[in-house]
Amino acid sequence: MEIASIITIGDEILIGQVLDTNSSFLARALEEEGIHVGSMISIGDNEQQIEETLRKELSAKDIVIVTGGLGPTKDDITKKVLFRLSGSKKWVEHPGQLEMVHLILRSRGLDVLPINLAQAQVPDKAEVIVNKKGTAPVMVFRSSEGKGTLYSLPGVPFEAVGAIPDVMADIRSHNSLASITHRSVMVYGIAESSLSEMIASWEDALPSDMHLAYLPDPLTGIRLRVSVYGGDKEKNEKRVDAQLAGLKAILGNLIYSLEDSSLQKSIGEILKERAETISAAESCTGGEIAHLITSVPGSSAYFLGSVTSYAISVKEKVLGVPSSVIEKYGVVSAEVAAAMAEGVRKLTSSDYAVSTTGLAGPGGDGINPEGTVWIAVTGPRGTRTVRYSYKNDRARNIQRFAASALNFLRLYLLEGE
Amino acid sequence: MEIASIITIGDEILIGQVLDTNSSFLARALEEEGIHVGSMISIGDNEQQIEETLRKELSAKDIVIVTGGLGPTKDDITKKVLFRLSGSKKWVEHPGQLEMVHLILRSRGLDVLPINLAQAQVPDKAEVIVNKKGTAPVMVFRSSEGKGTLYSLPGVPFEAVGAIPDVMADIRSHNSLASITHRSVMVYGIAESSLSEMIASWEDALPSDMHLAYLPDPLTGIRLRVSVYGGDKEKNEKRVDAQLAGLKAILGNLIYSLEDSSLQKSIGEILKERAETISAAESCTGGEIAHLITSVPGSSAYFLGSVTSYAISVKEKVLGVPSSVIEKYGVVSAEVAAAMAEGVRKLTSSDYAVSTTGLAGPGGDGINPEGTVWIAVTGPRGTRTVRYSYKNDRARNIQRFAASALNFLRLYLLEGE
Repeated sequence: MEIASIITIGDEILIGQVLDTNSSFLARALEEEGIHVGSMISIGDNEQQIEETLRKELSAKDIVIVTGGLGPTKDDITKKVLFRLSGSKKWVEHPGQLEMVHLILRSRGLDVLPINLAQAQVPDKAEVIVNKKGTAPVMVFRSSEGKGTLYSLPGVPFEAVGAIPDVMADIRSHNSLASITHRSVMVYGIAESSLSEMIASWEDALPSDMHLAYLPDPLTGIRLRVSVYGGDKEKNEKRVDAQLAGLKAILGNLIYSLEDSSLQKSIGEILKERAETISAAESCTGGEIAHLITSVPGSSAYFLGSVTSYAISVKEKVLGVPSSVIEKYGVVSAEVAAAMAEGVRKLTSSDYAVSTTGLAGPGGDGINPEGTVWIAVTGPRGTRTVRYSYKNDRARNIQRFAASALNFLRLYLLEGE
Repeated sequence: MEIASIITIGDEILIGQVLDTNSSFLARALEEEGIHVGSMISIGDNEQQIEETLRKELSAKDIVIVTGGLGPTKDDITKKVLFRLSGSKKWVEHPGQLEMVHLILRSRGLDVLPINLAQAQVPDKAEVIVNKKGTAPVMVFRSSEGKGTLYSLPGVPFEAVGAIPDVMADIRSHNSLASITHRSVMVYGIAESSLSEMIASWEDALPSDMHLAYLPDPLTGIRLRVSVYGGDKEKNEKRVDAQLAGLKAILGNLIYSLEDSSLQKSIGEILKERAETISAAESCTGGEIAHLITSVPGSSAYFLGSVTSYAISVKEKVLGVPSSVIEKYGVVSAEVAAAMAEGVRKLTSSDYAVSTTGLAGPGGDGINPEGTVWIAVTGPRGTRTVRYSYKNDRARNIQRFAASALNFLRLYLLEGE
């Protein structure tokens, strides 16, 4: 199995100003190909440290991917090290990247300065993959010191992530990677430990070459991934699918997708297919449900809108929640959640509506503890409500509330199917 | 100057499943104390690799902070390595942490299993800082091999981040750190390069012991931080304040806070002081403005609510935007933005309202390119509109639109002050 190392260069990461998201994206892409990431290292814009780190990793790993250190004001340090380590003799201009430098700066209405032109200069031992999203090229050094192949990527996240498909294609074409089959199943509404119990006998009966991974996330639930390394890919896909049919029989509607997805995407697919619409009324989630739904491109086809009713006056006046209901049951109650959902459904004339009212914290309301939420869903088959209770901080509670509301809506949409 | 190394242990980071946020929080805390972070390293749950990495870093750095590797099912590997490296002779039970294990599991309604009790067992050379948020203790090894002091923290982010103040206090009390003075100024509404030009002569005239850092972020704008290392802290604070007065004279309302803050927090402070209220009408930002405003604890004091009017029907029916205005000017227009803001202000009876209508992408509408947004603010002094244009992906455009809208609202609130 190939072993990889991911190295990030940049002072801004070491002072905690910027979160290193590039390494995570790269790791995921490598792992999906069955390449084991042995370490991730972040170092500063320091020539000696860059050289030492690259030298060490290249001697120990098959693949070394470096991001950062290539900005127009920084390129000399990292590039100088790459020049030396690769045993290059001279600098050459790469015409494809030079054209890209001109194109990109022109499209931004900027002058092309000598500092920009220098970005198309690479050590003669570098193979260049033209960076279509930025001025710094992706460089590949196959004959570098040590045993590893080195990939140098720009640090700007959308350029680094943009280069991943080309880098992975290059890695595939230069390594005889074992075939790898991944299938994901998305699960929501069950704790990891309970899920593990529920599918224990199914998991135990999996053929020994199938590996199961639990990949949890507060907004998307648990991604169950089955992987097979090696063998005939087409055959393996069929074998995995057969196993997943068994999983589906056990978990039923706890599964919301048989591929890598999100609750908001799954809901969107159901609604688009049926040409139906939704709306939302949010109190404690404060806009997060609408934000998640509209993060999906094309969501305007089924999402009509929402009301964030933070004040009681807005619950009453805009959503039509009777003040008697609020007085009798309190703001955080099944009755208010139901009236909010029914109110926004009427207001927007949507087919379905979802609502939340609760306490994200800090602090409870004297009756309900912090972390309590009432969720309602309404539609042609009437109104349903549910109560959940979480123990997180405000930001995480808001995420949990919103994801639970989306899942409750999903289950309503699937009723009778 | 003390040099630190941050090490994260956990396979879930190396497969790209989890983003390592702990290291970033730790780096920021260390940097604020003037401690230089030389490297951040992520490695897997592998005994040999853990031992090699800790040994190397302890020999090269003054402070080594390790997070992760301490879960109830993992503790044997990392703890065994710590036992060996510290030259410990036996395992001892820490009564304070043992009590915490009981307390925490009881509060979660869980049984205390032997595996949990083992978490209060530490190598005899460890000093324990009781972890008040979890079952695994924070361990300090001062007599470890090499020159560095090693801090072992749990990996769960809210436990690791929760332990930072105690760890920093321990570092301060065991190192004679130079005094350090930091002051931050928050700026929004100007590009980094223009800001740099605008304050060039002020920056050049800064006393040589004052260091300026630009810390940009899409949601909060640019944080300008002035730091002085060493010297008399009280005196330095006065000296920095005098310089910041000069900066304020140059930048005026481009500055939204003279301390580390966010636009939504600053707006909240203004509104709370005046006992005034706001509401929002969102189209392309799809709930993000409401989400940002309500991410601030206590925002219910001034945020009445919002309408996400994704569909034209909701713009017309709920917000009262005349269909003739939409027909004449198009959905993405100053006129529709103004009518939306005025509509939601009337609907919620708020003092002020802010609105957005635009194209987050992918794709434009034939007239306006992707990345266009019209923002309106309305209040007692009438309605103002502004148009911005960005070139990012959908998610980033939504963030930029929302932050620009909050800033436009802020400037309206400050008019005449």
